[in-house]
Amino acid sequence: MSNKHTELLPALIALDWGTSSLRAFLLGNAGQVLQTRSTAQGLQALPLPGAAGFEKAFADIAGDWLASWPQLPVVAGGMVGSAQGWKEAPYVRCPVDVGALARHSVSVPSGVGVDVVIAPGLLLDEADNPPDVIRGEEIQIAGALATNPALVEAATLVMPGTHSKWVQITAGQITHFSSYMTGEIFSVLVKHSILGRLMTEPASEEPSSAQAAFAQGVEAARHSQPGDFTHQIFAARTLGLTQRLPQPVLKNYLSGLLIGHELVSGLAKASAQRQTQGPLLLIGEPSLCQRYAQAFAILGVPVTGLLDNPAPRGLWEFAKALGLIHPPQDALH
Amino acid sequence: MSNKHTELLPALIALDWGTSSLRAFLLGNAGQVLQTRSTAQGLQALPLPGAAGFEKAFADIAGDWLASWPQLPVVAGGMVGSAQGWKEAPYVRCPVDVGALARHSVSVPSGVGVDVVIAPGLLLDEADNPPDVIRGEEIQIAGALATNPALVEAATLVMPGTHSKWVQITAGQITHFSSYMTGEIFSVLVKHSILGRLMTEPASEEPSSAQAAFAQGVEAARHSQPGDFTHQIFAARTLGLTQRLPQPVLKNYLSGLLIGHELVSGLAKASAQRQTQGPLLLIGEPSLCQRYAQAFAILGVPVTGLLDNPAPRGLWEFAKALGLIHPPQDALH
Repeated sequence: MSNKHTELLPALIALDWGTSSLRAFLLGNAGQVLQTRSTAQGLQALPLPGAAGFEKAFADIAGDWLASWPQLPVVAGGMVGSAQGWKEAPYVRCPVDVGALARHSVSVPSGVGVDVVIAPGLLLDEADNPPDVIRGEEIQIAGALATNPALVEAATLVMPGTHSKWVQITAGQITHFSSYMTGEIFSVLVKHSILGRLMTEPASEEPSSAQAAFAQGVEAARHSQPGDFTHQIFAARTLGLTQRLPQPVLKNYLSGLLIGHELVSGLAKASAQRQTQGPLLLIGEPSLCQRYAQAFAILGVPVTGLLDNPAPRGLWEFAKALGLIHPPQDALH
Repeated sequence: MSNKHTELLPALIALDWGTSSLRAFLLGNAGQVLQTRSTAQGLQALPLPGAAGFEKAFADIAGDWLASWPQLPVVAGGMVGSAQGWKEAPYVRCPVDVGALARHSVSVPSGVGVDVVIAPGLLLDEADNPPDVIRGEEIQIAGALATNPALVEAATLVMPGTHSKWVQITAGQITHFSSYMTGEIFSVLVKHSILGRLMTEPASEEPSSAQAAFAQGVEAARHSQPGDFTHQIFAARTLGLTQRLPQPVLKNYLSGLLIGHELVSGLAKASAQRQTQGPLLLIGEPSLCQRYAQAFAILGVPVTGLLDNPAPRGLWEFAKALGLIHPPQDALH
């Protein structure tokens, strides 16, 4: 049997299971992705209530893989381990590495023979500050560190999204993080506040004026003082009312303002927390990371790189830390 | 005819006409309120489209007053003068006093004989800052200044609401103001964001824990750094998730945090803008003003007083500045 063939043997089923989606990966015995499947059956759209909903969604997405390879281990990360998930994997306190994730994992019967091992989320609990939580990003980070050794000693990872996360890595561990509700706030302001009323859709592509409005929002954030947020966002209305900005780019202005606020705060916290200056990386959906990269550029802060979702590799590292990955020769027995 | 009788003669119909309500006041010839009427026929709930909707709503609320006293002048303030109103009264630039409001008013036929004179809104247009606007509050301020001579030389007026306004008075004029979307943001976060999910209604009245959670939110705001807003509000979720705060008081925490942010920013701007230190007054709905007064107390800032809505008196001052108020002897001719 050739090495090439050996490498194609499946070694793990990995689930990235969030609120609004379920993604399943069939990973080969070198951690490579052999197949990817995705459904909208996140926690909010399960086919049945309770555990039966998780079991059915899992059987639908991965049942045939297990029929072919019944001994495959199964791991999962994301909101599937929350209090509203399949089985709760309680938050683990920082500092944390992938070994700690494995030690604090929980198992749940899959309904089709094997157990599913679920990763915990992380809790940051500092004196003088409210607690903060992460669930799902810790797996992505495990993947990012495994594929980017330069990040292990010290790094700042910025993960834009509905709830953006700023994560500090020190000596291979997640030592600190902060959540920002940037994406969700943008969405509720556009959909549900008076700011959305003037926001017409662009009649045509106007990349330069949209880009300028975004930059103007970032600049406004750069000059913000404590508490200014609910004042500054009102400009996304007044700039339209007074025709200083065309209505189709008011949304870009608001986006720049919100991302700018996040960057101003995140950078200040990062520089206060880091003992060692390390690289700054963006991790997430590429077009959103691009927008963040533009905002960093406007603020004059260099970004070392952009990583697309490293969840499959993170789940692989989690499975390795659990001792679930057997060397290729085992698979050949 | 006795003086007492003279004072009861109507001299003005005054309309406070906003987005969600219409209030009509019949004022006596000393400016006193003889009758008050209120309907939900604000700009968003007119009985007919276009000008006919304003005419019908006006005839319904004030037609019988004009039938009895056909010569009564009619003035109006609020969103009725906006681009979506009965007739647009374009924004006037600061600094502004009630005389300037009169000079920039517009008139529209009421449909029942008399004209309605509508007050303009205000525009603040500073270099290096986006423009800001007010419409309706300028009338309340005219009323507050007429009844509180101590405010005329220098004062800071804080007007809490959907869009709170912080207004600087210098030498009888409105010289500066800032809008804060505090009330609207609170409402959309509770109704439309993930923060509302953990916010159960209180099972019973728990004034002390609710009060403590509110104070905790104000304290968090006091220690905020630029850009922290979308990070700090996430605590209204994590404090519930980790059982640090009981779910029924998460809303109080968020309220304290949002009001606290407004106060931190507003106080900094006020102290940067004021040449003369003057009193600080709260104007608006009494229970909301009480909550703001508590937040000011937590920050150690003295509030000189609380004023309920001075709009009727402001509309009276506007009518006087327009020359529409005739001395009592005219009414007796």
